[in-house]
Amino acid sequence: MLIVMKPTATEAEIDRVLEIVETLGFRPHIMPGASRTAIGITGNRGAVDRAHFENLPGVSDAIRVTKPYKLVSKDLRPERSVIKVGNGEIGGDELAMIAGPCAVENPDQVFEIAQVVAASGAKFFRGGAFKPRTSPYAFQGKGEEGLKILAEVRDQFGLNIVTEAMDEHGVDMVNKYGDCIQIGARNMQNFSLLKYVGKTRMPVLLKRGLSATLDELLLAAEYIMAEGNYDVILCERGIRSFGSHARNTLDLSVVPALHKITHLPVIVDPSHGTGRNYLVDPLARAGIAVGADGLIIEVHPCPEEALCDGAQALLPNQYLELYEQVKAIRKVLTPVAETVSV
Amino acid sequence: MLIVMKPTATEAEIDRVLEIVETLGFRPHIMPGASRTAIGITGNRGAVDRAHFENLPGVSDAIRVTKPYKLVSKDLRPERSVIKVGNGEIGGDELAMIAGPCAVENPDQVFEIAQVVAASGAKFFRGGAFKPRTSPYAFQGKGEEGLKILAEVRDQFGLNIVTEAMDEHGVDMVNKYGDCIQIGARNMQNFSLLKYVGKTRMPVLLKRGLSATLDELLLAAEYIMAEGNYDVILCERGIRSFGSHARNTLDLSVVPALHKITHLPVIVDPSHGTGRNYLVDPLARAGIAVGADGLIIEVHPCPEEALCDGAQALLPNQYLELYEQVKAIRKVLTPVAETVSV
Amino acid sequence: MLIVMKPTATEAEIDRVLEIVETLGFRPHIMPGASRTAIGITGNRGAVDRAHFENLPGVSDAIRVTKPYKLVSKDLRPERSVIKVGNGEIGGDELAMIAGPCAVENPDQVFEIAQVVAASGAKFFRGGAFKPRTSPYAFQGKGEEGLKILAEVRDQFGLNIVTEAMDEHGVDMVNKYGDCIQIGARNMQNFSLLKYVGKTRMPVLLKRGLSATLDELLLAAEYIMAEGNYDVILCERGIRSFGSHARNTLDLSVVPALHKITHLPVIVDPSHGTGRNYLVDPLARAGIAVGADGLIIEVHPCPEEALCDGAQALLPNQYLELYEQVKAIRKVLTPVAETVSV
Amino acid sequence: MLIVMKPTATEAEIDRVLEIVETLGFRPHIMPGASRTAIGITGNRGAVDRAHFENLPGVSDAIRVTKPYKLVSKDLRPERSVIKVGNGEIGGDELAMIAGPCAVENPDQVFEIAQVVAASGAKFFRGGAFKPRTSPYAFQGKGEEGLKILAEVRDQFGLNIVTEAMDEHGVDMVNKYGDCIQIGARNMQNFSLLKYVGKTRMPVLLKRGLSATLDELLLAAEYIMAEGNYDVILCERGIRSFGSHARNTLDLSVVPALHKITHLPVIVDPSHGTGRNYLVDPLARAGIAVGADGLIIEVHPCPEEALCDGAQALLPNQYLELYEQVKAIRKVLTPVAETVSV
Repeated sequence: MLIVMKPTATEAEIDRVLEIVETLGFRPHIMPGASRTAIGITGNRGAVDRAHFENLPGVSDAIRVTKPYKLVSKDLRPERSVIKVGNGEIGGDELAMIAGPCAVENPDQVFEIAQVVAASGAKFFRGGAFKPRTSPYAFQGKGEEGLKILAEVRDQFGLNIVTEAMDEHGVDMVNKYGDCIQIGARNMQNFSLLKYVGKTRMPVLLKRGLSATLDELLLAAEYIMAEGNYDVILCERGIRSFGSHARNTLDLSVVPALHKITHLPVIVDPSHGTGRNYLVDPLARAGIAVGADGLIIEVHPCPEEALCDGAQALLPNQYLELYEQVKAIRKVLTPVAETVSV
Repeated sequence: MLIVMKPTATEAEIDRVLEIVETLGFRPHIMPGASRTAIGITGNRGAVDRAHFENLPGVSDAIRVTKPYKLVSKDLRPERSVIKVGNGEIGGDELAMIAGPCAVENPDQVFEIAQVVAASGAKFFRGGAFKPRTSPYAFQGKGEEGLKILAEVRDQFGLNIVTEAMDEHGVDMVNKYGDCIQIGARNMQNFSLLKYVGKTRMPVLLKRGLSATLDELLLAAEYIMAEGNYDVILCERGIRSFGSHARNTLDLSVVPALHKITHLPVIVDPSHGTGRNYLVDPLARAGIAVGADGLIIEVHPCPEEALCDGAQALLPNQYLELYEQVKAIRKVLTPVAETVSV
Repeated sequence: MLIVMKPTATEAEIDRVLEIVETLGFRPHIMPGASRTAIGITGNRGAVDRAHFENLPGVSDAIRVTKPYKLVSKDLRPERSVIKVGNGEIGGDELAMIAGPCAVENPDQVFEIAQVVAASGAKFFRGGAFKPRTSPYAFQGKGEEGLKILAEVRDQFGLNIVTEAMDEHGVDMVNKYGDCIQIGARNMQNFSLLKYVGKTRMPVLLKRGLSATLDELLLAAEYIMAEGNYDVILCERGIRSFGSHARNTLDLSVVPALHKITHLPVIVDPSHGTGRNYLVDPLARAGIAVGADGLIIEVHPCPEEALCDGAQALLPNQYLELYEQVKAIRKVLTPVAETVSV
Repeated sequence: MLIVMKPTATEAEIDRVLEIVETLGFRPHIMPGASRTAIGITGNRGAVDRAHFENLPGVSDAIRVTKPYKLVSKDLRPERSVIKVGNGEIGGDELAMIAGPCAVENPDQVFEIAQVVAASGAKFFRGGAFKPRTSPYAFQGKGEEGLKILAEVRDQFGLNIVTEAMDEHGVDMVNKYGDCIQIGARNMQNFSLLKYVGKTRMPVLLKRGLSATLDELLLAAEYIMAEGNYDVILCERGIRSFGSHARNTLDLSVVPALHKITHLPVIVDPSHGTGRNYLVDPLARAGIAVGADGLIIEVHPCPEEALCDGAQALLPNQYLELYEQVKAIRKVLTPVAETVSV
């Protein structure tokens, strides 16, 4: 059930709706919008009786939701969401650039890259302290020590920190040191973890699973939002196919397909999406051209010595060139993006 | 590194090797075998010097492992592992049948099915108390209440309980009430969870992820074993493909491909592997014909009322017929299976 | 439109229906069955008026077909079709075994294998004279010279010849020398070729394309049948997926899924379906266990010297063992197969 | 074997090499380049002895080719090929736009669209007279009548005609009426057809198969080139995956991956690549941003009445907007494209 308030609805009228939802034993999710406020209801089994709401003062409409997702949907919030991450924004007019190394290795490596990223004008820094590795014998990340280095990057360079958590302990740590919790592709349907980050009030970067459908991705976001955390950024990072010229198959059609259904921002990860240095730049350009709200890019001063995923990292100067290119493409799009987004 | 002891090695000689491994700061994994004991070493970065071991009394050989996996490998243990689950065994001569409802719904439903399963001669009972559901609004399982019902099934019917855990809390609960922890397909690369179950001493049924390669499945098992829990059962449950005649594409070739590399037992789940009632029986037959060590089958007295996955559940009498058929096929295979397994 | 005749319908009554269909400018396809004859109509654009037929003597029913396929469907012919190939049958009670080398290389090679195949009791011999190869520089087959060798195999050993054609010229050649035209996976949607073989009166072995859905496979068969050739045998030979432990992913669930919809026989090719010698035997067993009507198996006395696909060929003694195993599994199934087929 | 001539080599010296290749019983393929001419050799079994060539006057180097493809490779021709199609070019500095209806339906429909396409400044017109349809009962195209309409479009509007052939007869027809033969995705490995178009001297637009790897696509082109037709344009049109938000998954990473290996131009088909009207525009932008040499786009004045694939056709004004956008993006790329192409 979705309650759409009149543009003229008062705060008291909205509060009255919230109260009734709670009295019925359900959970209200309030979504303020440009022209009107909507209230999503979860926690109900079966249909909610519209009669509870449709005649209340300030209520414009009470709509039954027939799609599997509610809170991610544009039905609830027709305009696109802009998510605040630290002092930056993802989903707004400006292209969001998140750059940094795959893994935090040591302060020198991190600061060297952070300097490049900050100088480029990007607002977000990435770097993993907890690394989900296919093999138990591969480098697993520096843990809290790595997060402290990232926190220093924020202090020194004013960059907002996006970093992955793999479990509840990791979420608590990232909550302490970072600005945005990344949930990796392999955890996209780790529903317990989704619920846990849903209980935090930190923005979540949710990566699409390797074989996740659009619906599954949206429902994973719905898991987070149903717990009351509405700051979710979706990320396409390549799906698994039969192809072998790239590590994954970057499915760019999912970006406009998601924008058609959801108000959440969508970014693209051409580094994991291709796994090959020489493919990152063209696919980053394509990601912005297709309408993504931002990019997440791996940068390393010395890719061949990287402890993780060196083959896909860009050199600092490659990163700077890429950034200029995608900003120019974004400029071409600007008037169109608005039309398309409706 | 893999230390192969002589068939004549004494316990003291074995202990001496374990001690040296620990002194070096590594972790020894002892694998007793029919003809000789082997000791796997993990925790090393880079190669271990063979000189530490090759001249010790009782040591036959010190072999560098070049494959990405160590403890799952037949190099460590040439004969197949037989895993004890409660008072039953998986991986031995007898086909292991695990049957029961998708989800624990209520005592009546569970006991009705358990009676059928026990009467059929199966030793293992399945039923989910924690359900990983694509939607946050779908039935999420009965939790501890469900586990208590399952514990009663064990007490009343002598069946060994196989049930899923989705997080650390769930693992603790299953450890308390069940006999075997199932890790679902969507958590196959939830590495934190794998490490956690690796620290228990309860057998683990590890389901292959929807787009996991053979190597990724083996390395997920390696995560568990590297923590000291060697009782892992692998399960093929269908991969994601373009096909739509079944919910998933059951990849039966992975069964002999796994048996070629690993000593761990491999079972097949034709219920999730097909998602359609009428396909469960033929694919169960095929799973046994291809050489699987067992099956996990969903049974429900009233599939159209099931709270979860009714479309793939068998009626009790369908299940009984299936069981007879697969036992007859298993009999045909018996002499071959031994040849194939080498 | 599908005209179902009464069990008591006379030949004259059937002829009258055929005549009317032709008068309307459509094409009638007569399908005699165990209990009644049915007549499929193709060539119509839009719906055919039932009034033309429903009151004719001998007509039981005139049914509008809403599925995309007509002639392949069990609606037209409820019982399974048994296809005559030379003096053998595919689709009947007996498991059909088609064995032989991938490519015809020379008379000695072919006769050596033919002797093994004939001695095993198999009725069908495979061997390619026209080889669809990924590279233009790979061995392309012996052409007509190869077909002459195959014709000699028939004369000497009484085996029925199944061999591939890749174009109209090849179809004419196979029509001259062989007993069954194979259409390879890469030509499954070569619609011009399908129409051309549809105009012959030779049985067609139609292999499923590497990424063909069940519907696409059935519609490819429909292309052949719409031209008047009703003797089509379907073949699952593996689909393309992300997996790398086998060359293809054998999708055995398609066998019962096809049997549910179509009256055509379905066989399995575990040689191309796996591409690895050690996987052929277990997947052949699984193919028969899942309910396939037969197998097509590559045999070579010296696989490492084969000009094509040696890695998947069985040695003669491996083939003989496999044949014994699958016959034993078939025996287990027999009563079930009948139930399943309805 | 690949013979690289010196930049100073005379025509006589080149002729001498060609002559020797032919004397050896092989086929020479001459590839003139900006700075030097190279000669590819096919038809050899096993290695060619370098001694035949390395000391000839004018020869710079004789290189053994170890990759599976020869003539498509940048080893043979380091600079990108520009293919002449009628009076237009594909692969050069200018973005190639091929637009038109899916199928030729009638003169009015075709001329209406042709007017839009010509007015937009595009040089190429698409439209199918022979349609490969999944069902034998779907509209199969107008055949020669359709081709005549297309020939009139060329006469009236000066557009160059790109149209599909499905068999030898179709190739002969297209050769008579059109400017470029399209080989559809389902015929990408119809090797007989590839050889046949290789014998024409008309440019070929070769679409990637639904599950074709990069190597398979290049080897399909190699089939055409080995017959002496070097004018091949590659086209990415979406691969088959598990996704369902679009009809196919457009794999844009294949564009730079192909450009890295081959000198042939690569275009993108976002119409078939997505199958949904609203996705065509963003994916067209992405296709150009990723570096494609052109686009092939379906346009229809009245998509809901189209006899074929209406769901993916653009309205004329949508097409015009798209064209403006992609030209603007192309302008952003221009300096980069050159760097990337090396």
